[in-house]
Parts: sequence; C-alpha cells; structure tokens
Amino acid sequence: MRLQEIAERIGASLRGDGSTEFTGVAAFSTATSRDLVFLEDPKYVQDAVRSSAGAFVVGNFDSAILDALAAKGSLIVSTNPRLAFARAAEILRRSERPSGTIHSTAVVHASAQVGGDVSIGAGAFIGPGVVLGDRSHVGPGCALLSDVIVGEETSLIARVTVYPGTKIGNRCLVHAGAVLGGDGFGFVRDPETGSYEKFPQIGSLIIGDDVEIGANTTIDRGALEATIIGNGVKIDNLVQIAHNVEIGENVVIASQTGISGSSVIERNCIVAGQVGIADHVRIEEGAILGAQCGVPTKKVIRGKGVVFWGTPARPITEYLRELAAMAKLARRKKSGV
Amino acid sequence: MRLQEIAERIGASLRGDGSTEFTGVAAFSTATSRDLVFLEDPKYVQDAVRSSAGAFVVGNFDSAILDALAAKGSLIVSTNPRLAFARAAEILRRSERPSGTIHSTAVVHASAQVGGDVSIGAGAFIGPGVVLGDRSHVGPGCALLSDVIVGEETSLIARVTVYPGTKIGNRCLVHAGAVLGGDGFGFVRDPETGSYEKFPQIGSLIIGDDVEIGANTTIDRGALEATIIGNGVKIDNLVQIAHNVEIGENVVIASQTGISGSSVIERNCIVAGQVGIADHVRIEEGAILGAQCGVPTKKVIRGKGVVFWGTPARPITEYLRELAAMAKLARRKKSGV
Amino acid sequence: MRLQEIAERIGASLRGDGSTEFTGVAAFSTATSRDLVFLEDPKYVQDAVRSSAGAFVVGNFDSAILDALAAKGSLIVSTNPRLAFARAAEILRRSERPSGTIHSTAVVHASAQVGGDVSIGAGAFIGPGVVLGDRSHVGPGCALLSDVIVGEETSLIARVTVYPGTKIGNRCLVHAGAVLGGDGFGFVRDPETGSYEKFPQIGSLIIGDDVEIGANTTIDRGALEATIIGNGVKIDNLVQIAHNVEIGENVVIASQTGISGSSVIERNCIVAGQVGIADHVRIEEGAILGAQCGVPTKKVIRGKGVVFWGTPARPITEYLRELAAMAKLARRKKSGV
Repeated sequence: MRLQEIAERIGASLRGDGSTEFTGVAAFSTATSRDLVFLEDPKYVQDAVRSSAGAFVVGNFDSAILDALAAKGSLIVSTNPRLAFARAAEILRRSERPSGTIHSTAVVHASAQVGGDVSIGAGAFIGPGVVLGDRSHVGPGCALLSDVIVGEETSLIARVTVYPGTKIGNRCLVHAGAVLGGDGFGFVRDPETGSYEKFPQIGSLIIGDDVEIGANTTIDRGALEATIIGNGVKIDNLVQIAHNVEIGENVVIASQTGISGSSVIERNCIVAGQVGIADHVRIEEGAILGAQCGVPTKKVIRGKGVVFWGTPARPITEYLRELAAMAKLARRKKSGV
Repeated sequence: MRLQEIAERIGASLRGDGSTEFTGVAAFSTATSRDLVFLEDPKYVQDAVRSSAGAFVVGNFDSAILDALAAKGSLIVSTNPRLAFARAAEILRRSERPSGTIHSTAVVHASAQVGGDVSIGAGAFIGPGVVLGDRSHVGPGCALLSDVIVGEETSLIARVTVYPGTKIGNRCLVHAGAVLGGDGFGFVRDPETGSYEKFPQIGSLIIGDDVEIGANTTIDRGALEATIIGNGVKIDNLVQIAHNVEIGENVVIASQTGISGSSVIERNCIVAGQVGIADHVRIEEGAILGAQCGVPTKKVIRGKGVVFWGTPARPITEYLRELAAMAKLARRKKSGV
Repeated sequence: MRLQEIAERIGASLRGDGSTEFTGVAAFSTATSRDLVFLEDPKYVQDAVRSSAGAFVVGNFDSAILDALAAKGSLIVSTNPRLAFARAAEILRRSERPSGTIHSTAVVHASAQVGGDVSIGAGAFIGPGVVLGDRSHVGPGCALLSDVIVGEETSLIARVTVYPGTKIGNRCLVHAGAVLGGDGFGFVRDPETGSYEKFPQIGSLIIGDDVEIGANTTIDRGALEATIIGNGVKIDNLVQIAHNVEIGENVVIASQTGISGSSVIERNCIVAGQVGIADHVRIEEGAILGAQCGVPTKKVIRGKGVVFWGTPARPITEYLRELAAMAKLARRKKSGV
C-alpha cells in the first residue's frame, strides 16, 4: 500500500514521498525500506536514523528532529504517533489478501457454509452447520463443533476449540488454545448422597465484533441463557470467564483473571492481571481493578476511573492507607513501643 | 423418553399426561414442546406460562400456581426442583445413543482396544495399548498417548491430551484442552553448577468415576507413585493439580486454583477460585476454602463446614476481624487520633 | 546401558556387579530387575529391600544398611543420591533411540528442514521454513507455524502451538498445550472513540537450551523486540509470560505465575506459584518470591536468597511481623482492650 494512502486512512499528515509501497511495520533493528517504524520519544532519534526503515511515524517534534528523519525517509506526523502506528500496522495487516486456501487435511462437514476467501488450516475440523464468514481464517488444528458462527475477517490462529452454537463476531482474533463456549461449572448437590449432579449447561456464548481473545483462555457458555462478550473487548491469555457473564464494550482484561458466574462488567472497565471476581458481581462503567484484587459475591464496584485494590477490593487510597498503618504498627511492636 | 419414565427415574411425582416423549431441557425462551423447563421460584411463573415448553419441573408450590402451569403442560413436582431438573437433563443426555462412529481421519493404533459404540472424532490420535470403554467418546483433535485407559461412557470433548498410562474412570466428562498425566514439576539442583536436573516423573494419574474436568485444566502424574482424583470430583477450568496430589470423593474445585505436590484434599471439601495450596498440605474432610486464599506448606486445615480465607488461610471470622481492625486503625491514623 | 557406565557418567561409585544392563528408573513398588530405584532416607530401607529393583542409588549410609541392600542388588553410592538418581534417569531417558518416524498424517511443508532421526507425530503441522534439529520430536497435534526453529533433541510432547519465527534451543522439553510466541497484549486507546487499536506484536521469542515448559503455559513474543528465556529455565504449567520479558539462566517458575510485559527476572531466582509480577519489574539475581505474592509496576526486588511475600511483595520477615501485629490487634479489639 502506498504511504499516501496509509497517511490518509489513519488521518495523519505526510511529509516526503507518498508514492512508495509499504508492506509492514517493524522495530528499528529489523526494518527494511518497505517497513514503517515509529518514534514516540525524541531521545531515540539516533536509533531511528540508523535504521533502514523506509518511513517514520513520529510526533510533532522539533523541526531539527523532523528534518534529520526526513533526510532518511518519509514521515507520517501525528499528535499521537503510537495510535497512528498501531492503525497503520492494522491497515497493512488487513490489506494482506487471505490465502483463501482450504488445506487438504482439513475436515469440513458437508452442511457447513464457507464464505468467500476463507482459509482453513491443516487438520482443522469444521463441524455440521458451521458458518464461516468471508475472509475468515481457521488455523491448523482448530475444532469448531456444530453450528458455530464465525464472522467476517475473524481469525482463529491454531488449535482453538469452539463448542456448539457459539457465535463469534467480525474482525475478531482468537489465539491458540482458547476454548470458547465450554460448559459452565454448575452442579446441584444431592443432600442424601453428597454427590453432585450436573446442572444443564445448554445456553450460548455470543462474542461481538473486534474482540481479541488470548491463548489458552476459556470462556464458558451460559447455563440456560447466554454469556455475552461486547464489541471491542480485549482479553489476555489464560483468562477464565464463567457462565452467564456479561462484558460490556471496550473492556480490557489482563492475563489470569477469573470472572465467576453471572457477573457483569460494564463498558470501559480495565481489569488487571490475576484479578478474581466472584459471582453476581457488578463492576460499573469505567472502574479499574488493580492486579490480584478480589471482588466478593454480589458486590457492586462503582467509580469511573477509580482504581480498586486488595481483597476484598476497595479504593486504592484506602487500601494503601491500611497497608501503611499495618506496617507502622508492626514496626512499633518490633521496637517495643 | 416418555415423561412418565423420567419422573420415575428421578423419583418425582407426575401431574398430567406422562406419555409424551421428551428429548431435552431448555430455558423458558428457547423451549419447544419436547423440552422440559424448570421453575424454582414461583415469582417467575408468568415466564414459565409464556414459554412453549411441554413440561415443567416445579417445587411444591401453591395449588393456584401449579394449576396455572398444569393448564400449559405436564408437571414434574419435586421438593428439590433444581436437583430434579438436573437429573432429568442428565438422564435425557445419557439416553442419546452415541454415534459409534470412528472418523476416517482419526488415527487408532493397531494395538488399541476400542469398546462397543465408541465414537472417535476427526484427527484424534489413539496410541498403542490404549483401551476405550464402551460408549466412550474421544472428540476431534484429542491425543491419547500410549496405554491410556478410558472408562465406559466417558467423554473427552476435543483436543484433550492424555499422557501414557493415565487411567480415567467411567462416566467422566473432560473438556477441551485439558492435559492429563503430564510430568510433575520436580528438579534437583546441582550445587556446583546451579543448574537443575529433572527428577523422574514416571508415576501415574488415576481418575475415578463421574469426574468432570474443565477446559485447559492440567493434572500431573505422580513423580514415582500416583496422583489420585476420587469419584465424583468436579474440577473447573484452568485448574492446576500437581504430582502426587490426592483428591477425595465429591470435592469441588473452582477455576484457576492450584494445588501443589503431595497435598491431600479429603472428601467433600469445597475449594473456591484462585485458591493456592502449597505442597504437603492436608485439607481435612468438608472444609471450605474461600476464593484466592493461600494455604502454606505442610499446613493442616481442619473444620467441617468451616470457611477459611486469606493468606495464610484462617477461619473467615478471624480474617474478617483482622480486616476490620486494620481498616479502623487506618481511619484513626488518618483522622490523627 | 550397563550400570558401570551409568555410575561413571554421573560421577558416583559403584558397589557390586556393573555389567548388568539397565533400562529405566522406578518406584520401589513398580521396579523390575532392569530398573534403578533410589533411597534417600535410611528409614525406608525395608521398602527398598522388598522391591524387585536391580540396583539402588543410595547415600553414604551406615555399612549395615549398605550391606543389606548390597545383598539384594548393586549399589550406586553418592553423597547426593537424589541428584545422582535424577542424572541416571536422564541419561537412561536420553539413551533411548528416537523413533525417527514421521507419521503419515503429519503435514510437513516442502520448505521445512527436518534433521536426522526426527520423529513427528500424527496430525502434526510443520509449516513453511520450519527447521527441526537432529533427534528432535514433535508430538501428535502440534502446530509449528512458519519459520520456527527447534533445536537438537528438543521434544514437544503434543498439541503445542508455536507461532512464526520462534526459536527453541537444544534439549528442551515442552509439554502439551503450551503456546509459544503468541501475540503480546498491547493496545492503544483511541481517546475519541474509547476503542482499542492493536499495537503491533511482531517481535520474537527466543528460548535457550535445557528449558522445560509446562502444560498449557503461554509465552508471548515481543512487541517489536524479543522475549527471552535463558538456558536451564524451568517453567511449570499454566504460567503466563508476557511480551518483552527476559528470564535469566536457571530461573524456576512454579505454576500459574504471571509475568507482565518488559519485566526482567535475573538468573537463579525462584518464583513460587500464583505469583504476579507487574510490568517493567526487575527481580535481581537469586531472589525468591513466595507463593501468591505480587510485585508492583517498575519495582526492583533485591536480595540473593531472600524470600519475599505478600502484595506488595516485601521481605517475608517484615510481612510475617505485619500479619502477627494485625492478628494481635484484632484479638485485642475482640476482647475489648
């Protein structure tokens, strides 16, 4: 894609030759003349100048810096060069034509509907009634059980398992080993024998558009109703999301966090790593949960932009005050006061 | 299956026509005339009445409520409608005849013993000496290395890996991505070089009957002896169980919990999510470990029905008292008292 | 392998017949005459004597004990019998000739380079440009995407996914379900729409020699540069290692630990289970992080051999003092003092 077009599509200004074709983005050390690199902090300008990159995505730096870079390649200038670079990378990535190849060892059920330019990797299994949207990609070793719907341009990298009836939106990216739509963890105890009977887990899992799901993450279907993942949600590796959970738009969930049954995380929340959220919790819009914190059953967390920490989770200022008081108390005891 | 037979098998009373055939269970909104639904709380009776379900599993409600429902379909009346519904669902599920199909792309070693009505999915690998019990199911992409034994009616959904010599009991359900019988984490440090030598992990993993194992959960074999999972144990997603652990009957373990080497969890314990149990711990019969709590090395936890919380885990009343004292102290410091 | 040779290779002394061939190691209860067993604590000498093992790896015990054992089989005597036993097991394991078989259902791209005596399991996918070192093993269902390099004698047990360009060293052992080189979790928020744009994750993952990686563990590639795992690192199951992390030689990381982006763990550190390490942290050489502890962003942890605990992680003596002070305070409040 020509640099001119990239600059236009990301809404940034171009300085220098816009007619050159670019194919990707890179780090300073690995870039070729067909790659864009980005410079967020002017103190690394020498690294940028030394690179072989064909163009630089930069901030509104001093003209001396911009001139030095312009002598080496074209510039895309933006007030938010990190965002501009990310957009450019995404545009270039999506401009790659999908292979549109179905590997000879893939198993595609006769009743599956395969869209245009779909690629399916070696040994992938596409079960009965599955629908694959145009330009979607199902990598090697994936298993899509019956009646799964995969949206357009969605990519399942490799060895992803999708349980029956799960619906995945458009432009999603699902990493290797993720398990989508598995049974929730629900049992009824027999008071006489003490053994557990499985409660039916026959609901569904509905995933919106532009969702990214990390490697080996597990998201369960609803028990009777649905588990819902909103548009633009980003989920890291090894995250657990239980049955009937509802995640709002643009929520970010870091690695190894667990969310128990029927909890709701409203839009724009940020959940750090190893957070534990019990069942029937509500995290209201825009709250931020600090790493390893724990939210007890049925709790409501409220506060746009407020950071919560500790178990049970409380506003971080409160938690830090408690930690300080505890440390002071321990020191006093030690010195015998 | 006819409703009459379902009611008899779950030991509940029938009201209305018992001759109709039923095929499954459902939510109010998705039920058809061949589905059972359940009503635990009479306040949702209008939702039940509006559903298209053919029969209702209900509690001993007021006769007005029962009459309203009976006008819409047959009733299965039970003092514990949740348990009755779960049992009915399980009976219906098990009444489905297994496909008994071995997919043409599955690889079954010549020395494997495959029972009657076994189904094996696309691309599954059944290694040398593996024994698959009658009516067992090995889903697409599973890899059963050598000498694995799978009991009758046990189902491995998809992409499950089972290491050599692992024994899985009858009627188990193993979800996608689980890894059973992998090497434990044991090393011996060389005091001269500082490097680690692998300690042999050549024991076994023995899983009882009626065990459910969640997606992407990992259970290691013993180092020299066995790791043992008792009958009726229910394990959620992303749980880690280390070498030589012993789990008693009807223990429930929620997501992301980790249990270190040689620990014992006696029967009927409940372990919440993200709990950490160090090595050589004993959790005595019927204790309850609250979410995110941590049990240190060699500790014995005792107390049937007692909830433990915090790290190091202590009775929850004690822990809550400490939290309250800490919060009060912090407030006092803040106000300068 | 003859016992004489085993003793020589592990640098231990032999007592008795060294000409017998041995094939493996075992527990007392399962050993045959071709197996080594080990006795670390003389109190179990009767168990050892009762076993059918052909030889015993023992400490410098009293001569009465050694005589009793010598009457039953040959002895390998070492000041560190556990290390000697581990080494013997490893030597015997490596002496097994690899099968050198490529299963007919494996898919090996025409441009892949396959070394001598490489074995590839059923349904494995070896993508374009992949290089497999001599005597390496890729188990059933593994997916090695493009340009992966696997060192000599490295074994990927089953269903391992390796993303493009990842480099794995020699003599590594990667357990089932691990995902190596996946995308890091990096996004740039668009301040206008609130949605997240994916930041490019195009760096690499470089894994050294003699590394063991547990089941379902995930290690991400760098964003633009590399994630680096040093020689001799041992990683347990379900661990998460984020983009741009650097792990030094002989670091041990227990199950369910998570390490966030750009953090550094210097050599010889020990990280227990369920530890959370935030981004841009440095754990200096030889520090020990206790189970479930949490290290906040940009923190430096220093102290060879010092154990840290709690969140935020502090020296364990300090943390225990705080816990004691808190408990005492709570008791005092309760008794109304």
